[in-house]
Amino acid sequence: MNIHGQPHRSIEADHARRIARIVDQTFLPHQVAWRELETMEDAAEAIQVMRVRGAPLIGATAAFGLFFALRDDASDAALQHAYDTLHATRPTAINLRWALDRVRRVVLPLVAEKRAEAAWSEALSICDEDVQTNHAIGQHALELFQAIQAKKADPSAPLNVMTHCNAGWIACVDWGTAISPIYQAHDAGMNIHVWVSETRPRGQGASLTAWELREHGVPHTLIVDNNAGHLLQRGLVDAVIVGTDRVTAQGDVANKIGTYLKALAAKAHGVPFYVACPVSTIDWTITDGIRDIPIEQRSAREVTHMPGLNAEGLREEVLITPAGTQARNDGFDVTPAALVTALVTEHGVFEANAMALAKLKAQIGSDH
Amino acid sequence: MNIHGQPHRSIEADHARRIARIVDQTFLPHQVAWRELETMEDAAEAIQVMRVRGAPLIGATAAFGLFFALRDDASDAALQHAYDTLHATRPTAINLRWALDRVRRVVLPLVAEKRAEAAWSEALSICDEDVQTNHAIGQHALELFQAIQAKKADPSAPLNVMTHCNAGWIACVDWGTAISPIYQAHDAGMNIHVWVSETRPRGQGASLTAWELREHGVPHTLIVDNNAGHLLQRGLVDAVIVGTDRVTAQGDVANKIGTYLKALAAKAHGVPFYVACPVSTIDWTITDGIRDIPIEQRSAREVTHMPGLNAEGLREEVLITPAGTQARNDGFDVTPAALVTALVTEHGVFEANAMALAKLKAQIGSDH
Repeated sequence: MNIHGQPHRSIEADHARRIARIVDQTFLPHQVAWRELETMEDAAEAIQVMRVRGAPLIGATAAFGLFFALRDDASDAALQHAYDTLHATRPTAINLRWALDRVRRVVLPLVAEKRAEAAWSEALSICDEDVQTNHAIGQHALELFQAIQAKKADPSAPLNVMTHCNAGWIACVDWGTAISPIYQAHDAGMNIHVWVSETRPRGQGASLTAWELREHGVPHTLIVDNNAGHLLQRGLVDAVIVGTDRVTAQGDVANKIGTYLKALAAKAHGVPFYVACPVSTIDWTITDGIRDIPIEQRSAREVTHMPGLNAEGLREEVLITPAGTQARNDGFDVTPAALVTALVTEHGVFEANAMALAKLKAQIGSDH
Repeated sequence: MNIHGQPHRSIEADHARRIARIVDQTFLPHQVAWRELETMEDAAEAIQVMRVRGAPLIGATAAFGLFFALRDDASDAALQHAYDTLHATRPTAINLRWALDRVRRVVLPLVAEKRAEAAWSEALSICDEDVQTNHAIGQHALELFQAIQAKKADPSAPLNVMTHCNAGWIACVDWGTAISPIYQAHDAGMNIHVWVSETRPRGQGASLTAWELREHGVPHTLIVDNNAGHLLQRGLVDAVIVGTDRVTAQGDVANKIGTYLKALAAKAHGVPFYVACPVSTIDWTITDGIRDIPIEQRSAREVTHMPGLNAEGLREEVLITPAGTQARNDGFDVTPAALVTALVTEHGVFEANAMALAKLKAQIGSDH
């Protein structure tokens, strides 16, 4: 999507120089700093310190990392070393292993001199497929938006969509998942307005989603997470759409902490609650999300401290509590399937229940 | 309650010197700075710049302000000037006018030389009555806590109470409203633990409630507002209790933004949701809170910026969004009576409906 009016991906391949460029997300939203990745170590460091984040983008970056390694040394030993190094950067991100496995599967049967080039091609394919997947999700969700818009008493009024956290293009290669239909609606001329929930503690809404939408010119308004219930109660929200970190085979949805409260409020006011969900996010091995999805416990410091830009324009972190205050920081919560209006995948829109998802599974075949 | 182990009120009268001392809340939670009020102008300024806040405390401070004015000049003209000056500091706080009217009613019939002393006495009475009211609220709510504790599978496990914003002693003269039963439970030896919701945007939970509870030694854990649904879903909350800014005659409750989401989540999990409510907070002239209670729109800056203490220990405000991000900042939301388990007043516990509240009104007589 656009930065300063120019279309970009979050990771871009320079074919001539065989390097990759990323937006260094540790500087967002206050500065757009592009950074070149030229070595396997560059890629590993970028993932490790979260210059790139978001499961799809992490996977793509790791794939380029394998290319860099194989270009310098295409031996089996070098491949294994690079695989292990990259995999160790964020061992819990499922897309990281998936991307590494995919590249390794392609290059392993090849003679050494052909491996690097094959890895480069595979990295490009991973990027392109991510873009296609997210575009397809956006197309399906856009149809849902259009149906809601058509039913509004005043069809010229903006469609008000609320989102949570950042499921935008900067978490993927392009488009994003939950934000993809918003970009497509905006680009198609629909009058759409986004309620951006700040998403404490890390503020991905306030920093990343607000930044993305501003750069692409999509009308939006930031709110504190506390305001979601009030806006839904007052009829100021037409739909809620969020991303997800894991969906169970019966449609329970794990997502950033605070998602569940929005789902409860949407249900209370009859507002649709959509989850944008690449099929790779569905964990077919579990059913009950509250029982089976582990919830990551994160640092109390994310709750007690807040980073930002001070009056001198310098990045600074401030303490917002009494010194030594204890905090609990659950990273995610689980929204039961009964509160989810629909799961929007690249293969279409599915109800959040075991039967509908079994149908999806049959449709996409046994490789998932 | 306690500060550094010593019992205090948020405003204290020095009888010998005929002055008042306040905790300057603009320095909390990072510093406890006491400040002496010696003139009407001191009192007005303290209210205006929020060195004191919370409706009951504002009223008490204004009453002392009238005493200071009358001590210097007990004429009708001086009284009127002081009344107007103090009233203009925070014209929307209902307790401010109530306290000013009360003192004026007492002193107006008196000869000039008796007015100042009468105002001093009345200011003391206002403080003492506030303490009594809040203590009584706490007593009634404590009985509710004890009943919940008695029913727990493991009665030795802590009673987990969640609160929102700051309805503590620092918003009143002492005890607080919602926090009053928590102090009384703790002082009585009950094993009680408080989930303190940070309360974005202004963070009254993270700063004031966390500070109060720490100073008094009550076990507590800070959470982001987004975490309330998850903790309720996991059975980690036994009761929710909040204060209120206005209650309608049918029991709808206006309170700090985010209260409504907690009420929805409490209802979803069968956890009692209590509202601590001095009868002075009930607006008998309205019924439908969503229709009739105006919601204050506050500055976007409270959403886009965060004040705190930097690494050097200096107070600083940081920008947490892209520059120029638009924000909407509703100060309050309305929780419908159907989500309120009970209103806890100084006259006892009442269901949140028109019939129960009519009974309360009859009980307390026609002066309310």
